[in-house]
Amino acid sequence: MKHITTDICIVGAGPVGLFAVFEAGLLKMRCHVVDALPAVGGQLSEIYPKKPIYDIPGFPDILAGDLVKNLEKQIAPFHPTFTLGERVEDLEKQEDGSFIVRTVDGTKIACKVVVIAGGLGSFEPRKPAIENLEKYEGFGVTYMVRDPEHFRGKRVILAGGGDSALDWAIYLADICEELTLVHRGTTFRGAPESAEKVLKLAEEGKIQLILKSNITEVHGENELKAVTVMVDNTTPHLVDVDYFIPLFGLVPKLGPIENWGLELEKNAIKVNTEDYSTNVPGIYAIGDINTYPGKLKLILCGFHESALMAQSAYNIIYPDKKFVLKYTTVNGIQELQQ
Amino acid sequence: MKHITTDICIVGAGPVGLFAVFEAGLLKMRCHVVDALPAVGGQLSEIYPKKPIYDIPGFPDILAGDLVKNLEKQIAPFHPTFTLGERVEDLEKQEDGSFIVRTVDGTKIACKVVVIAGGLGSFEPRKPAIENLEKYEGFGVTYMVRDPEHFRGKRVILAGGGDSALDWAIYLADICEELTLVHRGTTFRGAPESAEKVLKLAEEGKIQLILKSNITEVHGENELKAVTVMVDNTTPHLVDVDYFIPLFGLVPKLGPIENWGLELEKNAIKVNTEDYSTNVPGIYAIGDINTYPGKLKLILCGFHESALMAQSAYNIIYPDKKFVLKYTTVNGIQELQQ
Repeated sequence: MKHITTDICIVGAGPVGLFAVFEAGLLKMRCHVVDALPAVGGQLSEIYPKKPIYDIPGFPDILAGDLVKNLEKQIAPFHPTFTLGERVEDLEKQEDGSFIVRTVDGTKIACKVVVIAGGLGSFEPRKPAIENLEKYEGFGVTYMVRDPEHFRGKRVILAGGGDSALDWAIYLADICEELTLVHRGTTFRGAPESAEKVLKLAEEGKIQLILKSNITEVHGENELKAVTVMVDNTTPHLVDVDYFIPLFGLVPKLGPIENWGLELEKNAIKVNTEDYSTNVPGIYAIGDINTYPGKLKLILCGFHESALMAQSAYNIIYPDKKFVLKYTTVNGIQELQQ
Repeated sequence: MKHITTDICIVGAGPVGLFAVFEAGLLKMRCHVVDALPAVGGQLSEIYPKKPIYDIPGFPDILAGDLVKNLEKQIAPFHPTFTLGERVEDLEKQEDGSFIVRTVDGTKIACKVVVIAGGLGSFEPRKPAIENLEKYEGFGVTYMVRDPEHFRGKRVILAGGGDSALDWAIYLADICEELTLVHRGTTFRGAPESAEKVLKLAEEGKIQLILKSNITEVHGENELKAVTVMVDNTTPHLVDVDYFIPLFGLVPKLGPIENWGLELEKNAIKVNTEDYSTNVPGIYAIGDINTYPGKLKLILCGFHESALMAQSAYNIIYPDKKFVLKYTTVNGIQELQQ
């Protein structure tokens, strides 16, 4: 278990979390950055590192991955420290107003200010609205195929019409004893070639394909035994299964941050536009995770928010000093001692 | 006299004014940019083109001039038009809510939205507080040496202790019949080598140097005849002169924009942080020229302000369309037709 002490704990190592290190560093505040992902850059590294971005001011275009590299270089003089691959779990406010942030793996970060730069939060599976579904999670219901071998020789029912449902239907057709794919429409949102392959496997009898239908009920004592497929919205049809895998994509969730006592609105943290502070003194929220009148989920807006946040955090970390804005064109950057 | 019709008239071609063209262009709004300076880039081109800036997100460092070049390239797909070297003079609101912006040279820009991105405004001489000083402007009192030959053979008194006062004292020592330099202190703020040169010229009798003194009165019928120098704050001393040139540096002024009916605070335009709109519907103010709680005069803040402004301006320019934010990573940039 690691114990870290810093001025500011930044939750989220996306572009806005990284730039917050820079703005804090200009004011001689030290930062530790935590992220559930194993690398810095957030969505830019994880989802679209090779895609060009056109709306970063001063870059007619830049690959998302290169923007991350540039930001890493820009913050290097301030020697930030990182805990990567660990999701932040809870937050404890100390009597003196400081905080202890804890990750799922037990790392403790003691800090005076917490800056949540969590982007869209963590991505979690979209769950269909079926009564008692949660009861069977881990007992026949799962939202993700981690190891396909787990399903060898089993009776499996998949639901969904996107790439994920099509790809797993194709892959699992040879592995499962019985494979059923249920889709509410008649056409698929996924890649046309995958859809064709699924139709061919259905013709060959390797997949049982039920279109224009939804799964509406789950049955079983402790473990899942069967599901009800409502065909054409009218005819219930019972299918005996060992596993039910809804594949309806991912939705961003705030996750444990939801329990930190922060004022929320539409899955985002409400902030004051004067300094992007939350309703809890000492906690700020910047970037896509916050909301305020006029909010745009743009990286360049998060950059601005990080600058105003840093000014305000300065008053918490150095309560006796008066800050005067200095321009980097006049004095350059002064490296923080390690 | 030119007549231009556009969606948005941007007053100020500094980095924030330029980036506003980009944010407007993404929403298919056409821009015309006006600036009193003969080139785009504002202070970045005019004052420090060769200085590195360190706080533009994504650039560990970039020369101010290069940032301007990048921004020009970034906005090129939207074909902005420019009126450079002409100061904006007045603004007329039309009955239909649109505007006509006029420059000192008579160029007329008809537009639906005005975006003031005027930086610190225009720089004007700092004037000493002397009764009736304005009365003699152009009749013996001037704040700038445009053509030194104008002062050949004349009796001139300069006031100030900075580089400008020292440099002109050295230059004019050989040109004027009598040259006096009045400075309130005993040491100069200007370059030490210039100060030494001035002291040497004073020893040689080429400059009359009066330290620890202020000019407190100006005299004359229609033209300036003499000034009162208050020596040591106690002893008035009359000096006959043809010209009095106060050289106390430049101060940024809003200029004619002050008369546009905008709510001002400390030489800046008050805006709503939801969309950076002013109190006059259809007029926005972004960048260093605006003020709001938490305001920081940073280029990166102006970039953010331009994005929120564009969303709001869209509702004025396309009142019947509903805007949905699109990411450039998904669709890239669509060039506006010329």
